[in-house]
Amino acid sequence: MPRLVMKFGGTSVADIDRIRNAAARVKQEVENGYDVCVVVSAMSGKTNELVGWVRDTSLLYDAREYDAVVASGENVTAGLMALQLQEMGVPARSWQGWQVPLRTNSMHGAARIESIETTNLDRKFEEGLHAVIAGFQGISPEGRITTLGRGGSDTSAVAFAAALGAERCDIYTDVDGVYTTDPRITKKARRLGKISYEEMLELASLGAKVLQTRSVELAMRYKVRLRVLSSFSDGPGTLVCDEEEIVESRVVSGIAHSRDEAKLTLISVQDRPGIAAAIFGPLAEAGVNVDMIVQNIGADGRTDMTFSCPVDEVPRARKALEHAVAGGQIDHRGLDVDEEVAKVSIVGIGMRSHAGVAHQMFAALAAEGVNIKVITTSEIKVSVLVDRKYLELAVQALHDAFELEKAS
Amino acid sequence: MPRLVMKFGGTSVADIDRIRNAAARVKQEVENGYDVCVVVSAMSGKTNELVGWVRDTSLLYDAREYDAVVASGENVTAGLMALQLQEMGVPARSWQGWQVPLRTNSMHGAARIESIETTNLDRKFEEGLHAVIAGFQGISPEGRITTLGRGGSDTSAVAFAAALGAERCDIYTDVDGVYTTDPRITKKARRLGKISYEEMLELASLGAKVLQTRSVELAMRYKVRLRVLSSFSDGPGTLVCDEEEIVESRVVSGIAHSRDEAKLTLISVQDRPGIAAAIFGPLAEAGVNVDMIVQNIGADGRTDMTFSCPVDEVPRARKALEHAVAGGQIDHRGLDVDEEVAKVSIVGIGMRSHAGVAHQMFAALAAEGVNIKVITTSEIKVSVLVDRKYLELAVQALHDAFELEKAS
Repeated sequence: MPRLVMKFGGTSVADIDRIRNAAARVKQEVENGYDVCVVVSAMSGKTNELVGWVRDTSLLYDAREYDAVVASGENVTAGLMALQLQEMGVPARSWQGWQVPLRTNSMHGAARIESIETTNLDRKFEEGLHAVIAGFQGISPEGRITTLGRGGSDTSAVAFAAALGAERCDIYTDVDGVYTTDPRITKKARRLGKISYEEMLELASLGAKVLQTRSVELAMRYKVRLRVLSSFSDGPGTLVCDEEEIVESRVVSGIAHSRDEAKLTLISVQDRPGIAAAIFGPLAEAGVNVDMIVQNIGADGRTDMTFSCPVDEVPRARKALEHAVAGGQIDHRGLDVDEEVAKVSIVGIGMRSHAGVAHQMFAALAAEGVNIKVITTSEIKVSVLVDRKYLELAVQALHDAFELEKAS
Repeated sequence: MPRLVMKFGGTSVADIDRIRNAAARVKQEVENGYDVCVVVSAMSGKTNELVGWVRDTSLLYDAREYDAVVASGENVTAGLMALQLQEMGVPARSWQGWQVPLRTNSMHGAARIESIETTNLDRKFEEGLHAVIAGFQGISPEGRITTLGRGGSDTSAVAFAAALGAERCDIYTDVDGVYTTDPRITKKARRLGKISYEEMLELASLGAKVLQTRSVELAMRYKVRLRVLSSFSDGPGTLVCDEEEIVESRVVSGIAHSRDEAKLTLISVQDRPGIAAAIFGPLAEAGVNVDMIVQNIGADGRTDMTFSCPVDEVPRARKALEHAVAGGQIDHRGLDVDEEVAKVSIVGIGMRSHAGVAHQMFAALAAEGVNIKVITTSEIKVSVLVDRKYLELAVQALHDAFELEKAS
């Protein structure tokens, strides 16, 4: 029988009623003829509670014990989901990571999946027993419990879909799909029917919090068709798939934004080989997530170096730079910090074959009087930094300019 | 190095502060030179929460899933305790039942321990790593998680003490030991320094809720010295040990009581072989926990049959008896039910060698005008049913009569 992975996030299994609702969706797919592998997160709030206890106990905690504690949230939901399915007449059993087993490396707290042995699952499917998997967890070579990092249940789900050869991996969440942009910013935002892995990756990493970046990467590598849909309403959701499945692709599929960015400029640094390393080495060591980097063309052997990072990392960045300056690694004439910027990006695989998309973007922003402070581009996206006060205006203008309200 | 098992119940690990307090006690014993094996319950309230969720999901639940859900409470505490010990500089790691492994049969919800493999634990002790065990749980031959039934953490602790050859098994709880009687009934109640396994078994099964009966049985069988003490105050607690360790044993060690009993009398039943089976068979099938049974000497081939059971089981008992009467298995002239009785028992291994203890008990009760309704005796105890309103008076009178306020 064809197989289907159905993953339910924390809000979809937040209490007994919601677990019942999720189980009804599983029953429906069982009746549609699938062998179903359900992957569950912890009830919403539970993981935070467990993490809080660990932190209250110990600041520099042993990640192995952290994992043993935190993984227990998913065990509870897996058992309850199996019970609920049985109650509805669907034969099912729960599996914890070590029971499958889902093997990982020993990087506790952020373990990488190494393999999933499906022999036990296969045999139970043959007996007519559907599977409920505690997401987010595995077992290390040392026999300890590991977790895959925050949002790891999405990654579990995609990995199981790949290992089981599932027809699709359905990710049930509290939104009904992936949108052309944040619906809180413009009512014209429209749910996408399909989106390619590459576009989803850009959108995920740009701040659309629907799917974990890592799970999309994994889906892309193993060609797992992902569907994002709501467990609270009916509807087809959004299919994340290979671009070949998307017959007519748009130039721009979506607009992402990231509100709390900062722009830092080192003024008139010495323009010499190795200067970038001298600046960004210390920032990386200090744990600053540098995003965009722009180096202006200089004169007199001097140049301005601009980069962006999340606003709350500015103090760390300042400290790292001061330290590097004091150590003589950087010679500059001042640091300019703008903590009032936001990032807006247009994403679309169609850009590859369409020239002039960036120009169209800049024109649309200019028409609204939005000044662009920094630009970066990749093959399928263009990102700009603008004053934060223009964020909503910029998103709305771009949504209109690329006619994203129209169905493709 | 000598080994010590320290078990902490739910109230002793109810929150992070209490876990810290418990860990400080472990650290003390580590400094005293022990290899310590800590066994923990779930934080108080957590097991009830998990059981509640299971029952809300399903009435006739799959006990395997029940176990998978409910065992997670102990996993949380085990990890947090290991973290807290590390934080205090005590090298420690947590072990879940399947990791040890502690092997049980497949009687989910009330599994029996079959073996504890100590090879892994032994090796870690040699590396200087103390053990924190999630109590109450094990693994079945099928690789599923099992639980040992309510209060099973005591049983886990004693089993680990036996398997590890521990010098002693310390049970930390919210009372500071075993008392001569319930201190809420008489202020003269005194903590016992030592008590024999046999006496503790009688007291446990008679309603002194300090230790699970099963853990005392296990301790007796494997000669594990048990100590009951408080995690909230210092003090030596009560040692439960072989009677040979108790140099001078008292005639009566303690007085137990059980408040909510009922007395049922089948009046004038036919006195024939098999009548007891005809009465108590249906009661057992109906799940009625019959305690005391008295058959009066009859005349004219008729006799009265009296028994006791918990008050809340009376409706079930009535129904079972009515059913047996309707089926022609019992022929009688009426059923007398007294739901206003309580049981009071004196327990002591010294009774074996002292005649007249029962008489002394009856005399003490008579002196206070307390009428005795039913009497049963065993080698080391005498139990009586009295009107419930006399319960406190009876316990106080017996405590005085046997001079239990005096240290032995």
